[in-house]
Amino acid sequence: MSVRTYGEIPGYPVGSTFLNRTQLAASKVHRPLQGGICGGRDGAESIVVSGGYIDDEDYGDEIVYTGQGGNDPGTKRQIAHQELALGNAGLARNQLEGNPVRVIRGAGGHPGFSPSKGFRYDGLFRVVDHWPAGGKDGFRIWRFRLVSLDNIDQPPTHEPSTQPAPRVPAVIQRLVRNTALALRVKQLYDYRCQICDTRLETPAGPYAEGAHVRPMGRPHNGPDALNNILCLCPNHHVLFDAGAIWIGEDLGVYETATGRQIGRVRMAADHGIAYGHLAYRASLCSGGI
Amino acid sequence: MSVRTYGEIPGYPVGSTFLNRTQLAASKVHRPLQGGICGGRDGAESIVVSGGYIDDEDYGDEIVYTGQGGNDPGTKRQIAHQELALGNAGLARNQLEGNPVRVIRGAGGHPGFSPSKGFRYDGLFRVVDHWPAGGKDGFRIWRFRLVSLDNIDQPPTHEPSTQPAPRVPAVIQRLVRNTALALRVKQLYDYRCQICDTRLETPAGPYAEGAHVRPMGRPHNGPDALNNILCLCPNHHVLFDAGAIWIGEDLGVYETATGRQIGRVRMAADHGIAYGHLAYRASLCSGGI
Repeated sequence: MSVRTYGEIPGYPVGSTFLNRTQLAASKVHRPLQGGICGGRDGAESIVVSGGYIDDEDYGDEIVYTGQGGNDPGTKRQIAHQELALGNAGLARNQLEGNPVRVIRGAGGHPGFSPSKGFRYDGLFRVVDHWPAGGKDGFRIWRFRLVSLDNIDQPPTHEPSTQPAPRVPAVIQRLVRNTALALRVKQLYDYRCQICDTRLETPAGPYAEGAHVRPMGRPHNGPDALNNILCLCPNHHVLFDAGAIWIGEDLGVYETATGRQIGRVRMAADHGIAYGHLAYRASLCSGGI
Repeated sequence: MSVRTYGEIPGYPVGSTFLNRTQLAASKVHRPLQGGICGGRDGAESIVVSGGYIDDEDYGDEIVYTGQGGNDPGTKRQIAHQELALGNAGLARNQLEGNPVRVIRGAGGHPGFSPSKGFRYDGLFRVVDHWPAGGKDGFRIWRFRLVSLDNIDQPPTHEPSTQPAPRVPAVIQRLVRNTALALRVKQLYDYRCQICDTRLETPAGPYAEGAHVRPMGRPHNGPDALNNILCLCPNHHVLFDAGAIWIGEDLGVYETATGRQIGRVRMAADHGIAYGHLAYRASLCSGGI
């Protein structure tokens, strides 16, 4: 394992262009001469988006990126399943640790966002979600939702200020969003986790988190609705969001790694969770195949 | 309890000015005719910063705000302890739920940031921390660190985009920052919580969080150093950050509400946690008096 360099490479600001992969690799902005992901199980530092995977979706400041592997470079079609290994595992690790990836676009990608020739460094993106899915060619692919760091989680600045404050480089490891409907679900369960019954007591009152079952945002577009939100403790929220556990239509809680049932979700009579959303989420754990 | 209105009041953008509290109250930007905090146990929607408390610190986009109560309006001095009740409890609740507060500055506050007369709406701030402390007059006050929403946690935008994405109003309930040193502490404990030994297993590897003991940022200015970071599961991180538990120099874990010992912190021989930082954090739970 090489030492990872997360973040910008000095001397190569956003918009830097490269004639070819040799020049790109020499700059260290994306070190491999081949391969879309520079990374391993410990994390990923950069990716190239250049239209090599038919399942990629590019929206400019948001990208639904296809992991590596199982791809015929000649036809760009998938010919085998992808695994959560190597660079794919690295991108998932970045999500857990909050480390950003450098995104390089190459000619051949989305015409609205890609350079007409060569490669261009387009800035730092955050991995906000990952899940396996059935690709257009019928094989399992790993998908990663990336959002430009310019549009998310800027650290607070301290200017104007009457005294200097120490600044520590930090990334956001975990960001929990709350909605008015999530608050109602938490109140419905009196802030008790629906999986383990934990109620975190603090001097400011109880704490729990609202977990959207079918994720909001592309490409899932789950609704912010009572029937799509669970009340979970932070630990079970992490496990749920990371796809470590899923919930069956029998309301059993299942471990993705083993398939074993490890518990049951408690449901209030007036909650009305949508089983279709539970099934959608479960499909994200089983790979959609 | 009245229904809370979090966020901007239509018709009153940032910079709106008001001649006096009557006009301010009529606008609903800050409804009470007296009192610095509009809020109760369920949350707080607005505060006025106007130099009424000698412990207030104003840095423009960051404010260390003193809670309400125990204050002689004539002399502005504290004459009694403050409690985590009423508006103070409301501000703490905002921190847990992520709801923003409207900040109104009045003449009499920090000369660099306050209007010369009347009141001015200065935008939405996030409550990022709260703790009791010994005030300058020797009584316990509750302090709240507020950071301008303009400088933190902007939601991702979706422009430019080839298709509209649904947008749901959300606030950030919880934001966990990660640093390179936090990663080293997590590796030192193999991602096991030092309090409960939990190791959250996900398909992308184990998950834990680095918890700074003496908080970074004003006014604590704790260092980002190995000797100031614990490896905790998200649940214990929430309890620790909310002041629900503290750690003694005997490495016992104590419940703030009851004083009862509920466990012990496991320490690796080569971690070298600084006991001074533990004592500083414990003082934030005991009220600093």
